[in-house]
Amino acid sequence: MHSIEQLQALINKAINDTQYTEQPVELYEPISYLMELGGKRMRPVLVLVSTELFGGQVLKALDAAIGIEIFHNFTLMHDDIMDKAPIRRGKPTVHVKWNESAAILSGDVMFVEAYKLMIKVEDNILRDVLAIFSETASGVCQGQQADMNFENRNDVSLAEYLEMIRQKTAVLLAGSMQIGALIGGAAQNQAKLLYEFGQNLGLAFQLQDDILDVYGDPEKFGKQVGGDILSNKKTFMLIKAKELAKGNIANELIQWIETSNNPTAKVEAITNIYNQLEVRKLATFLMEDYVNKALHALDQIAVEAGKKELLKGFAEQLLIREQ
Amino acid sequence: MHSIEQLQALINKAINDTQYTEQPVELYEPISYLMELGGKRMRPVLVLVSTELFGGQVLKALDAAIGIEIFHNFTLMHDDIMDKAPIRRGKPTVHVKWNESAAILSGDVMFVEAYKLMIKVEDNILRDVLAIFSETASGVCQGQQADMNFENRNDVSLAEYLEMIRQKTAVLLAGSMQIGALIGGAAQNQAKLLYEFGQNLGLAFQLQDDILDVYGDPEKFGKQVGGDILSNKKTFMLIKAKELAKGNIANELIQWIETSNNPTAKVEAITNIYNQLEVRKLATFLMEDYVNKALHALDQIAVEAGKKELLKGFAEQLLIREQ
Repeated sequence: MHSIEQLQALINKAINDTQYTEQPVELYEPISYLMELGGKRMRPVLVLVSTELFGGQVLKALDAAIGIEIFHNFTLMHDDIMDKAPIRRGKPTVHVKWNESAAILSGDVMFVEAYKLMIKVEDNILRDVLAIFSETASGVCQGQQADMNFENRNDVSLAEYLEMIRQKTAVLLAGSMQIGALIGGAAQNQAKLLYEFGQNLGLAFQLQDDILDVYGDPEKFGKQVGGDILSNKKTFMLIKAKELAKGNIANELIQWIETSNNPTAKVEAITNIYNQLEVRKLATFLMEDYVNKALHALDQIAVEAGKKELLKGFAEQLLIREQ
Repeated sequence: MHSIEQLQALINKAINDTQYTEQPVELYEPISYLMELGGKRMRPVLVLVSTELFGGQVLKALDAAIGIEIFHNFTLMHDDIMDKAPIRRGKPTVHVKWNESAAILSGDVMFVEAYKLMIKVEDNILRDVLAIFSETASGVCQGQQADMNFENRNDVSLAEYLEMIRQKTAVLLAGSMQIGALIGGAAQNQAKLLYEFGQNLGLAFQLQDDILDVYGDPEKFGKQVGGDILSNKKTFMLIKAKELAKGNIANELIQWIETSNNPTAKVEAITNIYNQLEVRKLATFLMEDYVNKALHALDQIAVEAGKKELLKGFAEQLLIREQ
């Protein structure tokens, strides 16, 4: 079995070696640009790890892995338009560097490219892989729509939030692993267990991201600490705080949410409220619950324990970021 | 075999009976809205006609036919954003009625829905159908990009223009027919002949549209006659006129292209130039050439002549619009 770093290198090589020769170039340049900006390649790595878990060759799953990464980057390209995001991985977003039409249309063609790669799987799993991939794609779109809806609502419940992050983030990790497992020769029920693992890991990952936005090490976090607070983003932290806050603390929280002219004080004050309400503890508790559910699903998979170590490590690698 | 009207009715019923129960509703309302605006349903009709041509049951092809229509409407939803079009079939476009983000994301999810329907074909043709559908989708995106590129260029050649309309319009008709044929049990080479028929018919159709924009009956055309002239759209008419115009006529043409403050005079003057250069005759000549190529491909298909009458009629129905 390969290490995560080896798989990342394999994926990056495949991406960098991909040359789109079709015309017009305006359609394909943004694809190469975005794909080559890098990233952890978490989703395609999970495809390959899942294939190897069941004894399959990684090269057999490489097309599907790249397809998943192209799909993920397609959603980023379109999300960045909708979110009016100027920067992605430290570089101008596609709709800024080119224009919105280019970002819409290059995104569309990326989606086709993703399907073209998924279609390369073997006959006996073709229908299943495409069904999983399509269901995953619908889920991601639904999650993005729910996320946008939440921006205009002040009554988002924790259950709604968790369902949104499940769709927007977790189902793609889950689907990636299920597809990888099928390519590796896994039985349906075994692939489904890996889907469960991936889904719970994705939920845990997003909760950790919510925590890190407040409590992360600015050196390590990769995004601006306090970014969610400044944009009043309805994360676990804010939703839970609003649920728990009573009396003066509730009023204080509302006042700070409405404040936009003093960012440093806002981040400090709301962090302080989170501290008083012990929101971090609750978020960590729930995150650990998801990790445990993930590990429980992994436990049930009928392959030798040694082969599961990498996935356990992958879960741990995600969790380590908190410190 | 069914008549075109019967097939249209079948398709409209299937579309109107489709209820999207998934959440959030914001993602699915624009889909139902756009799909139910109507239209001639030419592409799905061609899927069904192609299936019947080879003796297949139309109901076997209905999912794929609706998938093609959803795909087509997805491209309209995204194109309307890029073209900043306010009206589609007499109603506000999705990005106007809702907003741009809704139009981007609902379009994305329509693309998934289209694939979900294509996946329902039988195992023995699944891979081929998906390959044709994906290749078609890439072609349509490439055609749209080329079309946008042409807006900023003044040296578009006729060959480039014809390649653009082939991709943007013709390959979808062609792919629809090839897929319908495969569902109907056609051999690969027979389905390919129907692809040729559809591609040439699509090219003829677009050329006729270019002619009708100038010479159409305002009562029947459905769009504003002279619309292409007013927007300086690089159609066959304008490209050919620029190629042919010399001396005074060339100067006059350039002047009118640059004029935007007198639409009635502009349409009249440029139409007059087209008349002098006999551009209509050349467009009709080329259009008829494509129709003949289409009919030649149809001739070669190994089914009894009687069964081909409907498709011949379909070609004629398209051509009749000119009068």
